[in-house]
Amino acid sequence: MIDISALKFDQNGLVPVIVQDSSTGEVLMLAYMNKEALELTIQTGYMHYFSRSRNKIWKKGETSGNVQKLKSLFLDCDGDTLLAIVEQTGSACHTGNKTCFFTALEGDKKKIATDIIFELMKTINDRKR
Amino acid sequence: MIDISALKFDQNGLVPVIVQDSSTGEVLMLAYMNKEALELTIQTGYMHYFSRSRNKIWKKGETSGNVQKLKSLFLDCDGDTLLAIVEQTGSACHTGNKTCFFTALEGDKKKIATDIIFELMKTINDRKR
Repeated sequence: MIDISALKFDQNGLVPVIVQDSSTGEVLMLAYMNKEALELTIQTGYMHYFSRSRNKIWKKGETSGNVQKLKSLFLDCDGDTLLAIVEQTGSACHTGNKTCFFTALEGDKKKIATDIIFELMKTINDRKR
Repeated sequence: MIDISALKFDQNGLVPVIVQDSSTGEVLMLAYMNKEALELTIQTGYMHYFSRSRNKIWKKGETSGNVQKLKSLFLDCDGDTLLAIVEQTGSACHTGNKTCFFTALEGDKKKIATDIIFELMKTINDRKR
């Protein structure tokens, strides 16, 4: 059992959840949970959200198979946002993209953290004894 | 000039912004922008938000000096969330923590991506010729 008493749901009973890939650090999506979706996520170990458009709970990947296994869950300093670190099967985005954030508005068209990881991996392999 | 026509602000004229550290991949905070905060961010290159509690625009770090320089800005697939990759000066959180997400509710008390980066950096240094 986790203590969710510090968690503040908004006037609609929802809390935003930032979803981050555990292996690449890439931010995959932003979704929303109500209390029941959070409880289902904790109980099953797989991400469940509340769909604001369909007005119901859904298990991520229930239809597509692109499930998200919960690795860690963090609460922010003022208790109104969650950060979930997940193991993503397939793509997070319904468009087929790995992440929902594939449209660059400004600056480098790179997800810096991910690029750093791949660059470091390449350097390590180059230096392998 | 960037095209923000695809961006959907909510009924309060706000859009949530996920803020990620460009060097470590760590998710630092979630904040909100109205159109003016977004324009100020693009114009100045430094993150500006709309405070829902104080009902006004604020430049991140204006008082503390802990500014956030914008590196890249992404829009999600349904146009209602932004992801900003930033160069963070000092701490992002008002508590003095680097990130606002320092409270672990469930799972490993680790930010996996960050840990991978530091582990890789250590391995690279160990293997340095």
